[in-house]
Amino acid sequence: MMFKGTIDSDIFREFIDAIAALVTECRLHIEPDSVFTRAVDTANVAMISLTLKKEAFESYQGTKEELGLDIAKLKNMLGMMSKGDLLDLTLPDGGHKMELAFNRYHYSITLLDVNTIRKDPNPPTIELPGKVTISGEALYSAIRAASVVSDKIALGIDPTHQIFYMMAEGDTDHIKLELHKNELASLTLVEVKSLFSLDYLKDMGKVMGRAETVEVALGVNHPVKFSFDIAEGMGHIDYLLAPRIEAD
Amino acid sequence: MMFKGTIDSDIFREFIDAIAALVTECRLHIEPDSVFTRAVDTANVAMISLTLKKEAFESYQGTKEELGLDIAKLKNMLGMMSKGDLLDLTLPDGGHKMELAFNRYHYSITLLDVNTIRKDPNPPTIELPGKVTISGEALYSAIRAASVVSDKIALGIDPTHQIFYMMAEGDTDHIKLELHKNELASLTLVEVKSLFSLDYLKDMGKVMGRAETVEVALGVNHPVKFSFDIAEGMGHIDYLLAPRIEAD
Amino acid sequence: MMFKGTIDSDIFREFIDAIAALVTECRLHIEPDSVFTRAVDTANVAMISLTLKKEAFESYQGTKEELGLDIAKLKNMLGMMSKGDLLDLTLPDGGHKMELAFNRYHYSITLLDVNTIRKDPNPPTIELPGKVTISGEALYSAIRAASVVSDKIALGIDPTHQIFYMMAEGDTDHIKLELHKNELASLTLVEVKSLFSLDYLKDMGKVMGRAETVEVALGVNHPVKFSFDIAEGMGHIDYLLAPRIEAD
Repeated sequence: MMFKGTIDSDIFREFIDAIAALVTECRLHIEPDSVFTRAVDTANVAMISLTLKKEAFESYQGTKEELGLDIAKLKNMLGMMSKGDLLDLTLPDGGHKMELAFNRYHYSITLLDVNTIRKDPNPPTIELPGKVTISGEALYSAIRAASVVSDKIALGIDPTHQIFYMMAEGDTDHIKLELHKNELASLTLVEVKSLFSLDYLKDMGKVMGRAETVEVALGVNHPVKFSFDIAEGMGHIDYLLAPRIEAD
Repeated sequence: MMFKGTIDSDIFREFIDAIAALVTECRLHIEPDSVFTRAVDTANVAMISLTLKKEAFESYQGTKEELGLDIAKLKNMLGMMSKGDLLDLTLPDGGHKMELAFNRYHYSITLLDVNTIRKDPNPPTIELPGKVTISGEALYSAIRAASVVSDKIALGIDPTHQIFYMMAEGDTDHIKLELHKNELASLTLVEVKSLFSLDYLKDMGKVMGRAETVEVALGVNHPVKFSFDIAEGMGHIDYLLAPRIEAD
Repeated sequence: MMFKGTIDSDIFREFIDAIAALVTECRLHIEPDSVFTRAVDTANVAMISLTLKKEAFESYQGTKEELGLDIAKLKNMLGMMSKGDLLDLTLPDGGHKMELAFNRYHYSITLLDVNTIRKDPNPPTIELPGKVTISGEALYSAIRAASVVSDKIALGIDPTHQIFYMMAEGDTDHIKLELHKNELASLTLVEVKSLFSLDYLKDMGKVMGRAETVEVALGVNHPVKFSFDIAEGMGHIDYLLAPRIEAD
């Protein structure tokens, strides 16, 4: 059992924030050439698949292993790290602890027993024919706008008008954001539309807001998949979110 | 029934903030050359008269009409607008909704039934002989200073010393701010003094703090009237605040 | 009974903040060439000795006197002062009030009856052989880091490795910061170690964080003394903090 890595604190922050949007603890898989995690929130509504290649680290040595991370605690520690800090991560023998060293600090945190953490979910095989590539900033901004009037948002593609739209309806008000194919990096002209809970999207949105572009994959009353890079392309995230049933 | 206007989001923000200092809903009167509102707070202590000329808008078309605005909701939406955004306001046919479009967003909000909103108050005819012209910033700063020691403030003019003063007394402490005629844009040398609740003044003060100058009109145990421009002179506000009875 | 002084509002702020870290009221001693206070917190765990020389004032006139200051109230007033404001302090005849004037403001606050405030404590005579000189910023940063994992911190010197260390242990995690003699302005190579409550250190740390250097004096299970200058060397503070008993 071995793991030793040095990583820029900003990349570590992106990594922890992305997971913390859905879960407070996770199984981290160490592989010789990457680390990855796959986790589902407690309500089984949202899933994250996250991979960080060894190239995202300044230095990296790992053998196949599975660790139980207390994400909430690691998020707390982010506050102590400064921009530009390099973070040394080590698993000492025994493997019940992880050591974090940065600046002049040495933290030692107890790992969670992996058997107490939910098993990795299997990503469902679903067809999502509607695909949009949009800037992370525009996506996050729309999510925040929608949450002013409602707690859910519809995402859809109108192939006739060549438009990707986000729409939220409150009891008395509604808001619509429309982006034409010309304003998007790409758009498939298929009619799709599904409704999602803004509760989840707000947390995911904060993470996606930092991505240059996000690929959004949609179906008809199907889950949405958001795919985007982190760590300057040395890492990748897929968020999957189940649809809400539309009440008519 | 017709109204269609385009306005800078910063001017719209000033407009909404000024009304929101007193009430959560109001009747907005549309006229061919301006919009205006007149509202009294629920406790009948403070009144606002606000006019925004059509010149404050980038474009403006209106026929005589009365709308019920949910000010609290509009204030919520301000957060979504960025500096420099232009806001399109439209009343579609039927007139139960108002549409707000800015950036790529389209909001549609339900208007309130004007009959559920208090009728326009009649501004009382009162003589307020003491007049001071002071910078909005100095006025707001004095209001905040007074609220550290008390919940009420006396405003007055001392003609002998040619001074406009603001004075607050707490149980054990007091604070006094004195400004001499030389430091003021103008001052009438009449003896006046009245006492006001800081509760109201703090909210009004935040709005007045942005005005270059505010004309303050005072009497002896009479209301105070604050008059100032908004929208770079294309709009005007009068705040009227009833005095508190001084306990001796 | 006489006191009259003019002081830069930033120095006054440092002065009040330093005392407010431990107590909400204190006896201030006026001397012809300085003011000073000595106070112990209500739990008898921490002590402050603070002196401000008359040179810290723009102008200063004082005869021997003792005043009861409401520190909490003065801290409230700090918010009203702007950077660069000069503050005039005066005791008018009678001596039940202190007047504060700055900008155009005149505050008058009631002094506390000194007989209702605890008598000055006597600084204990203790030998603290371990001495470290460290930047205030590094000290405060370590205190904050420790408080993420625990509510107490051990401070000590390891003479063998020539290291000053700060160490905090939580239920499952621990953190250690080690600074070598080379990285410190000075370090005596004596083996010392004591444990302290972070509750107190966090408040003191905020004040010490602004000091260029802090001299830390330590013993074995003894109090710690932090000595540092304020007001650009025209004032000085000693904080003394009792140790906690280490449970094994």
